[in-house]
Amino acid sequence: MKLYTYWRSLATLRVRIAMNLKGISADTEIVDLQAGHQRKPEFHAVNPQMVVPALVLDDGGPILFQSMAILEYLEETHPAPALLPKDPRGRARVRGISQITVADTHPLVVPRIREYILKDLKLDEATLAAWIKHWTTAGMRAVEENLAGIPQTGVYCHGDSVTLADVCTVAQAIGYQLFGNDLGQFPTVKRIFDTCMAQQAFASAHPAKQPDAPKK
Amino acid sequence: MKLYTYWRSLATLRVRIAMNLKGISADTEIVDLQAGHQRKPEFHAVNPQMVVPALVLDDGGPILFQSMAILEYLEETHPAPALLPKDPRGRARVRGISQITVADTHPLVVPRIREYILKDLKLDEATLAAWIKHWTTAGMRAVEENLAGIPQTGVYCHGDSVTLADVCTVAQAIGYQLFGNDLGQFPTVKRIFDTCMAQQAFASAHPAKQPDAPKK
Repeated sequence: MKLYTYWRSLATLRVRIAMNLKGISADTEIVDLQAGHQRKPEFHAVNPQMVVPALVLDDGGPILFQSMAILEYLEETHPAPALLPKDPRGRARVRGISQITVADTHPLVVPRIREYILKDLKLDEATLAAWIKHWTTAGMRAVEENLAGIPQTGVYCHGDSVTLADVCTVAQAIGYQLFGNDLGQFPTVKRIFDTCMAQQAFASAHPAKQPDAPKK
Repeated sequence: MKLYTYWRSLATLRVRIAMNLKGISADTEIVDLQAGHQRKPEFHAVNPQMVVPALVLDDGGPILFQSMAILEYLEETHPAPALLPKDPRGRARVRGISQITVADTHPLVVPRIREYILKDLKLDEATLAAWIKHWTTAGMRAVEENLAGIPQTGVYCHGDSVTLADVCTVAQAIGYQLFGNDLGQFPTVKRIFDTCMAQQAFASAHPAKQPDAPKK
C-alpha cells in the first residue's frame, strides 16, 4: 500500500501512529501542502478532495480517504492490537473523543483555512494566530472535560490500553504544541500524551521525525 | 433514550434520519442554539463540548456525543437495516464520503463559527455568507467527485441501499439549500437527494418539520 503524506499533516499523523501500533508498513508519497501540490491535477485524480492522507491499496481499487475512515479500515483489516474497545458503549466514547478533534477542531486550522483567512479575508497573522489558538484550545478543553474525573478514563483515554481516542488526541496535542501552545492547562491530556510519547509507535510518527520535515 | 436536539442542527438531522430508518424512537429535549442555551451550565454538564446532538441512554451511563459516534453506535446496536456495507473497503468508502461532510465541511459553518466571524473578527454578513458558500460548495463538490462516474455509486452513494453516506450527504444538502445554494450543479448528489427525500424517513427529519422550527 502507498500512503500520501506530508510531514506537518496532523490527519496523516493519526494514520502513521495507527500503522506503527499495528505494525503495518506502507510506501509513502509526499504531497507538499505548503507549496500547494495537493491542488495539482495528478493529486486531484488521486483524491478529489485534494487533502491528505490518502491510502492506495495494492488491489487497484479506489483510494481510501479521510483519516477516520482509514483508521476504521485498518482496525477492521488488522484487528491486533485492537484500537477500539469491544462494547458499543465504549466504542461510542472512543469515537466521540476522536471526533472532537477530527471533526470539530482540526478542520478549522488546516492550510486551506489559514490561506483563506490571510488571502481572502485579508486578515493579519496575529488574527490568524488568535483564531488557531481559540479553536484548538476549545477542542482540547472539550477533550479534557471528557477525560478528567470520568470513570472510563484510565492509563489512556479509555481504559488501560491505547485506542483511537489516544491516536487522535496525541496527534492533536502535538499540533497544539507546534502552534506554540502549552498543554499543561489540560492535565489529563498531558498525562496521557506523556505516556503515549514514551512509546516508539507514537514518538517515531512525530512530524519532526519525517523524512520531508525541514532539517534544522 | 433522550436526544438533545435543535431544529436547525444538521448534525442532529443525521441522527434523526438514522433513527427513522432504523425505527428507533427517543424523547427529545430542545437546546436553542441561536439563543446560546448550549452554553448554559445545565447543558455543559450534559455535554462538555456544548454542542448537539447528545444522546442519553436509559442505563444512566455517560452520554453519547458526536454525531458520527452516535451513528456508529446505532448501527452496532440496531443493525437492521444496515447503514454500512459488509466489506471493509466499502465501509471505508461510506465513512470517507460521510466524513467529507462531518469533518471537513459542516464544522466550518456551525453557529459558534458564524458568531466568531461576526463578533470576534468583526466581519460583515456578506463576508460571512461568502465564507459559508465557499466551504459548503467545496465540500459538496468533493462529495460529487467521489460519486460521479465511480462504479461503486448506485441508486445511492454506495450501491443500491441507503448507507451513512446518504444520511450525511442528504443532511448536508438540506443545509446547503437552507443557506440559499442550488444543488443543481452537483447532479449525482441531486439525484440521490431526490431519491432519499421521497422517503418518509428522510422527509420527516427535515428541519422545517421539527416541533421547535419557527412557524411561518
